[in-house]
Amino acid sequence: MILVTNDDGIAAPGIRSLVETAREIGEVVVVAPDSPQSGMGHAITITDPLRLRKVRIFDGIESYECSGTPADCVKLAKNIVLKDRHIDLCVSGINHGSNASLNIIYSGTLSAAMEASLTNIPSIGFSLLDFSFSADFKASSSYVSAIMRYVLTNGMADGSLINVNIPNLPTEEIKGFRICRQANARWVEDYKEAKDPHGQPYYWLTGSFVNNDHSDDTDVWALENGYISVVPSMHDLTNYPAIESMKDINNITLPQ
Amino acid sequence: MILVTNDDGIAAPGIRSLVETAREIGEVVVVAPDSPQSGMGHAITITDPLRLRKVRIFDGIESYECSGTPADCVKLAKNIVLKDRHIDLCVSGINHGSNASLNIIYSGTLSAAMEASLTNIPSIGFSLLDFSFSADFKASSSYVSAIMRYVLTNGMADGSLINVNIPNLPTEEIKGFRICRQANARWVEDYKEAKDPHGQPYYWLTGSFVNNDHSDDTDVWALENGYISVVPSMHDLTNYPAIESMKDINNITLPQ
Repeated sequence: MILVTNDDGIAAPGIRSLVETAREIGEVVVVAPDSPQSGMGHAITITDPLRLRKVRIFDGIESYECSGTPADCVKLAKNIVLKDRHIDLCVSGINHGSNASLNIIYSGTLSAAMEASLTNIPSIGFSLLDFSFSADFKASSSYVSAIMRYVLTNGMADGSLINVNIPNLPTEEIKGFRICRQANARWVEDYKEAKDPHGQPYYWLTGSFVNNDHSDDTDVWALENGYISVVPSMHDLTNYPAIESMKDINNITLPQ
Repeated sequence: MILVTNDDGIAAPGIRSLVETAREIGEVVVVAPDSPQSGMGHAITITDPLRLRKVRIFDGIESYECSGTPADCVKLAKNIVLKDRHIDLCVSGINHGSNASLNIIYSGTLSAAMEASLTNIPSIGFSLLDFSFSADFKASSSYVSAIMRYVLTNGMADGSLINVNIPNLPTEEIKGFRICRQANARWVEDYKEAKDPHGQPYYWLTGSFVNNDHSDDTDVWALENGYISVVPSMHDLTNYPAIESMKDINNITLPQ
């Protein structure tokens, strides 16, 4: 059983492309948000009820739309929809736009994949470096299929997921996969300030992605050089070297 | 300048306690959500405008409420409110309830602190292990003050934050700080299924926290043994050992 989800919403072209690829490999169930959820990070819905509705949207594929976040979709899939069925693989996406580098922390696509990984379901987040609604997902579909088959055959370490980003190139220009680390890049925000029709000020987030991490073992390098980047990722955010460097915190005493 | 934020909303008792402690140490500015934002993870607001309103809520403290998520609050603080002022420290919380172990991935409190850390602002997320609105934040305030002073004096490695969780104990029973790693625990979900007043089904997330990671170097161990846990954390989610173990992904070829 392959669970398919995303963060752009169940009607987005990216998830349709992923469903078409996945159904050639195995039985597919879709549980995806009923509306776009970009930038939701690992948000979950605690203080409100969630809705789950069976929908006919992919021909012959059991599909549900959910009122919650991408992480909610995976929790509901595991606990309600597929409670008595084994999930061999969870795939999320294909996101319209990059989730390379630190974008993983903001990404609903990757948070859905991470939510699956928490119970040791091998999982993959897919993103194509084209924000447009009419992005061409066909060019990379054979690669998407190949890495899904690889993971189904080889499994994945417990608690892991992979963050797969695809350059926006014709098939013949894609050089293959490159396993790498998350580049240490950042966003430089640029808020647009304006007044609404009632004269009240608002701020609207825009920004530019800045990468000063230029070594050839990063996802940003791979993508700039025509590779599909594959970053093994996880939910342990501990900064292990800092445990040693900050160990005198153990000796802090209160003033008497 | 100390930036104070949280995820329970600007009116929560936890942030009031944090402001009272911080103002004894330095100049304080508050930018916090105008409503509770628990479980928002690292969500940011991209497709909607954000509101930022100056409010009088803490006597003599410059304060703003923001319509967005905790991460939005910190982005707006850095780029709008404190654009021309230096932020020496960002503190987030005090959260009503634990953010130990993998709760960091769901936590708005910690995502706010992480957002500050992305531009190398030393930052601390504080949480008290008491979910109630009337939690006693006084018992630990001298510890909260001590670790803020420690960080202001000693700084923090670039891109780092610390996740501080406080056991719900009287001051004299708190044994001090313990630097540790994030326990490898998980949530076991239990969705409550019911019908709404219109007869439509809904699902409401509940769950229990399960920890099978019992070694004495984890945050869960520290908290269970009367210590304040301090986990150095970061935004690099790369699973470095898996780069080696999955390197044959580089050799995947397409079927001809």
